[in-house]
Amino acid sequence: MPEVLIGVDLGGTRIRAARLDKALNILQREDTLTLAHEGLQPTIERIKALIHKVMPEDKSDLLGIGVSAPGPLNPLTGVVVAPPNLPGWHEVPLAQILRDEFDAPIYVGNDANVAALAEVTRGAAQGYRHVIFITVSTGVGSGVIYDGRLLLGKVGLGGEAGHMIMVADGGQVSTLELQAAGPALARRARAALEDGATSIMTDMVGGDLGLLDASIIGRAAADGDELAQQIVDHSAFFVGLGIVSLLHLFNPEVIVIGGGVSKFGDGWYEKINATVQKHALDDSYWRDLKIVPAGLAGAVSIIGAAALVLTQGGQADVTQVAATLDLYD
Amino acid sequence: MPEVLIGVDLGGTRIRAARLDKALNILQREDTLTLAHEGLQPTIERIKALIHKVMPEDKSDLLGIGVSAPGPLNPLTGVVVAPPNLPGWHEVPLAQILRDEFDAPIYVGNDANVAALAEVTRGAAQGYRHVIFITVSTGVGSGVIYDGRLLLGKVGLGGEAGHMIMVADGGQVSTLELQAAGPALARRARAALEDGATSIMTDMVGGDLGLLDASIIGRAAADGDELAQQIVDHSAFFVGLGIVSLLHLFNPEVIVIGGGVSKFGDGWYEKINATVQKHALDDSYWRDLKIVPAGLAGAVSIIGAAALVLTQGGQADVTQVAATLDLYD
Repeated sequence: MPEVLIGVDLGGTRIRAARLDKALNILQREDTLTLAHEGLQPTIERIKALIHKVMPEDKSDLLGIGVSAPGPLNPLTGVVVAPPNLPGWHEVPLAQILRDEFDAPIYVGNDANVAALAEVTRGAAQGYRHVIFITVSTGVGSGVIYDGRLLLGKVGLGGEAGHMIMVADGGQVSTLELQAAGPALARRARAALEDGATSIMTDMVGGDLGLLDASIIGRAAADGDELAQQIVDHSAFFVGLGIVSLLHLFNPEVIVIGGGVSKFGDGWYEKINATVQKHALDDSYWRDLKIVPAGLAGAVSIIGAAALVLTQGGQADVTQVAATLDLYD
Repeated sequence: MPEVLIGVDLGGTRIRAARLDKALNILQREDTLTLAHEGLQPTIERIKALIHKVMPEDKSDLLGIGVSAPGPLNPLTGVVVAPPNLPGWHEVPLAQILRDEFDAPIYVGNDANVAALAEVTRGAAQGYRHVIFITVSTGVGSGVIYDGRLLLGKVGLGGEAGHMIMVADGGQVSTLELQAAGPALARRARAALEDGATSIMTDMVGGDLGLLDASIIGRAAADGDELAQQIVDHSAFFVGLGIVSLLHLFNPEVIVIGGGVSKFGDGWYEKINATVQKHALDDSYWRDLKIVPAGLAGAVSIIGAAALVLTQGGQADVTQVAATLDLYD
């Protein structure tokens, strides 16, 4: 009896869906454009059509459907609240809509939580019980695996490390996301250049500072550009301090870092490690800690969405699920 | 069959021990001086003697002994690492020492975690599943109840909100404890007075600024002293921002605040609430949130230590234990 899972990745640009086996290997994948600007209903129809495409011939083989969606959303009810990158989506009961269509167990999780599940079942933290996944890209998202279960909190709003307060001084208040994510770094570079700093970044964007982004900053830093290196260091410093707070709160075994900003390279990780070691209360917090890059690339959301089904929304013990996967490999 | 528990509070100044019934009512209590400066072994003997004093006549009635001790300590092994207020204590295997003497289940927890257990079984958060206890006094301690269980982390070092990074600006790095605890507030008052600020606090300490503490600041603020009020506000602002970070990470139902600084009064709580409402991502984090003063006073550590036994070190579901307690009342 070939039992299969369906994983769906609902993104602002594309929708992806796949059929996977119980070891989270992808058997078939399909994708399409989201086109959220065309309205909620057409997007919902595209999601349904894509799921039908990857549906097993015998529907009784299907264990369930997991969906990775942009937050904020309520994973307990499967309601998508109002994601900035899905215009027109407001309190959409996505889990119920899909349950009505497919008559199968449906789990919906926010993309960072889903990625955490993927990393702990098939990625860089496979088999660990205390794991924090952080993605640093246009925002800072995160998912916490506490004692083998996805940490959600009272109504599923927990695990949002990007919104930790990191700067509170002279009336100014700022979060990890507002210090370390891509747009913050681009703003920082732009402000310095407008203040007269010299940098190869000006030429790299042909003088149009509006084109500055984390990728350009990373490439300039790799080329030895001083301003770019300062900005890369600033990002690593704040990610490192954010990790210090997380170590004292969750005492994890592994920190997994993904997202575009995490591609800044070895120097970025070295600075993070140095910051953690300097500012943690004592070495028992980091002596046995692993800080590692994400192990899964493009398929992370689809794998994590399928893992949502295997772990009943992250509430079954993921390390037991991870151990089971090895049997299938 | 009268089943009883023993709770022990090992503090820097006093040791307290009590026999309690299964509803966590205190049946007999004893205390003695810690006198840690006389050496480790004499203090250990005083702990043992005090436990013998509250031991039930029939030792088979004893369900176990719980100990609240100052951190850092490892709750999984019961080893007290090196508390600042217990000179001479270094990697002391307290649980094993007591197990050898009493042949009973022994649980050791750090004082803030133990207080969290007390508040969720018999105090201000009785019956809630997602609770954070914060004590603001000479330091900032905390304990997290996540989904009915005490959050410990990989080796029991989690739940330490006092060490969250709150200020990182211009190279300066500071934690919640270094901003909001009593000594930080006294330093702040002293610095302002030495800079020439006028305040009734100068007279209150007879001109000896070394005598400034949180209690004097609180009394001066209640009398309308402007500097004292600013410092009380500073403390509330940082406690509020710390809570903002905790809401995004744990999504709790209740925040319980104890400790001397929390006696600053209603204005302090109002400022905390205003800060939370201003800086949380959206109102779903605080709409149904309760921020309340601790419900247990002097006996909190003894009650929590006994609750350690009832909850197997905080790892059994405390809400089920709390529900059981009502049966006994």
